[in-house]
Amino acid sequence: MQNTSINNMIIPANIKKEPSNNSGINSLIELTATDMEKVNSLIISQTISKTDMIPKISRYLITAGGKRLRPMLTIASSILCGCKDDNHILLATSVEFMHTATLLHDDVVDDSSMRRGKISAKMLWGNEASVLVGDYILGQAFKIMVESGSLKALGTLSNAAAIIAQGEVMQLSSVKNISTSEDDYINIIESKTAALFAAATEIGAIINDRPKKECEALRSFGYNLGLAFQLTDDALDYNGDVKTLGKEIGDDFNEGKITLPVILSYKKSNSEENKFWNNVMLKEERTRDDFIQAMVILQKHDCINETIEAAKHYASIAIKALELFPDSEIKKSLIESVLFSYNRNH
Amino acid sequence: MQNTSINNMIIPANIKKEPSNNSGINSLIELTATDMEKVNSLIISQTISKTDMIPKISRYLITAGGKRLRPMLTIASSILCGCKDDNHILLATSVEFMHTATLLHDDVVDDSSMRRGKISAKMLWGNEASVLVGDYILGQAFKIMVESGSLKALGTLSNAAAIIAQGEVMQLSSVKNISTSEDDYINIIESKTAALFAAATEIGAIINDRPKKECEALRSFGYNLGLAFQLTDDALDYNGDVKTLGKEIGDDFNEGKITLPVILSYKKSNSEENKFWNNVMLKEERTRDDFIQAMVILQKHDCINETIEAAKHYASIAIKALELFPDSEIKKSLIESVLFSYNRNH
Repeated sequence: MQNTSINNMIIPANIKKEPSNNSGINSLIELTATDMEKVNSLIISQTISKTDMIPKISRYLITAGGKRLRPMLTIASSILCGCKDDNHILLATSVEFMHTATLLHDDVVDDSSMRRGKISAKMLWGNEASVLVGDYILGQAFKIMVESGSLKALGTLSNAAAIIAQGEVMQLSSVKNISTSEDDYINIIESKTAALFAAATEIGAIINDRPKKECEALRSFGYNLGLAFQLTDDALDYNGDVKTLGKEIGDDFNEGKITLPVILSYKKSNSEENKFWNNVMLKEERTRDDFIQAMVILQKHDCINETIEAAKHYASIAIKALELFPDSEIKKSLIESVLFSYNRNH
Repeated sequence: MQNTSINNMIIPANIKKEPSNNSGINSLIELTATDMEKVNSLIISQTISKTDMIPKISRYLITAGGKRLRPMLTIASSILCGCKDDNHILLATSVEFMHTATLLHDDVVDDSSMRRGKISAKMLWGNEASVLVGDYILGQAFKIMVESGSLKALGTLSNAAAIIAQGEVMQLSSVKNISTSEDDYINIIESKTAALFAAATEIGAIINDRPKKECEALRSFGYNLGLAFQLTDDALDYNGDVKTLGKEIGDDFNEGKITLPVILSYKKSNSEENKFWNNVMLKEERTRDDFIQAMVILQKHDCINETIEAAKHYASIAIKALELFPDSEIKKSLIESVLFSYNRNH
């Protein structure tokens, strides 16, 4: 088997890589640009604080150049639903704050040294600051939600907050548990990722007083898009480009996280390969040689491509959920964001 | 100077200890008992989860036997304001959850090994679980608030959540900063402690649609009671009974936390004593001998009694805030809780 070196990680050469389509969310970015500028201003103004550390850490992370896909989805969903006032700005900001708070706490839990291509906040300011600034940002998220005056949107987002944390706890319990089933894993990422995507898009319909079936359609859209995104992330962790991914390749593996590629591989492996997985995921630390060995087994059983196929499955459900809405530029951009979800290299 | 040994810590003997008045909140406990039973049931039902770890950790902490003073204050304030429905049960539960989440995160930040007289959750299940279960409980707190349907109460509590986290960050910045001023310190405990007490009591008026001056009076009551409680805690950390306090005496000192006794002492100390404070608070770890030396200086300048006097000052403002309300059993019990705040040994 021929191997190609990408950013010092050995990646087997024959993994099918579709041409990357980084421009896939350009029209979503353009159509939400005016509103996203308002979201960005609100983000800055809401992180002003009596204490220096809060704006320093929150802006460090927020301005690190994440895609801001979640608030963009709230804006786009609201535009799709007629956008009757400026409440979508408030709620999109809340969604981004909820996400930011989660990232800060995740870094503590995962002990990550990199985030969005930069050194993680916890490496610079310590676990304590990451926990507390995360709590502050979450508090601000709820304050802004309350300003929107929509109890229904508040219900949707606070429910998502509890579900996200539950998903993280479930993932904690499954770390190094090589016998995690596919179903258990989908349960974890439903909570960890899809719940916020689902809430982010559903509230676009809620705040515009759209009928229940439109709320449900946008919820399904966000939920399935979230699953597609997460599964693609899982695949990219074994197959991405460290420069555009903004985190280290092999992070999940290094942390002993059991993601879909590993679960699929464990199911298909022979007894020697299973022995490798059992040993390697229980070890205190995994080496670069372990990672190469893992990649060889994943490749042999085509598990990365299979993970991408699973992402495509959920992506197709997401696109179907939008059928209910009449064709428009914004609907087209949402569909393109789904295609982007599994057809990207970062 | 004669020293007396209390639980293996040397406490100078001539600190004025008023007779402890543990029964000071008995009538508050009695008058809120029926409602607090409903709060307790709601706490249990809201910590049921798909994952074992969430009920295990949250119940470990919640059932550890804290006084549940904050939710009790919400119940009592609501009774004082006429209590028109059962929303005070929901909001009291939210208040307790907000407090519990803060404790879980505090233990991570402070690296505490004890909490409420038991080994802390983070010692048993690790930092990761404490962070994430704290997040889950905070999410549940907001879900329950939303169920109350009161946007005004939601505003008050979400504001408190952001302020609490800000106070914790401020305290983080002041750790080992011996030149923290009295004003800076009061700012910290305003956020860290008084904000939740103030919100807990104010919402009792809010959900019963009481006029603004009653909301403000109950807010002032809670705020000043919170300050009195925190300052008494600070004094007890140098003068308490480990068995009834439920945490280790000298915890603040061991963690290098600059609390009011130390701030007062630093102001009054001679150059040699100041040199001691500067050295000892910047050290990586403080020894038992350091603690004894600190106690001797605190005692010499009467700083523990002075801290209790500061607590009494805020307590008197809290009592004054209740003048607006007609006399009743519940009002009497609230006043007694203020007297208890500075006249206790745990």
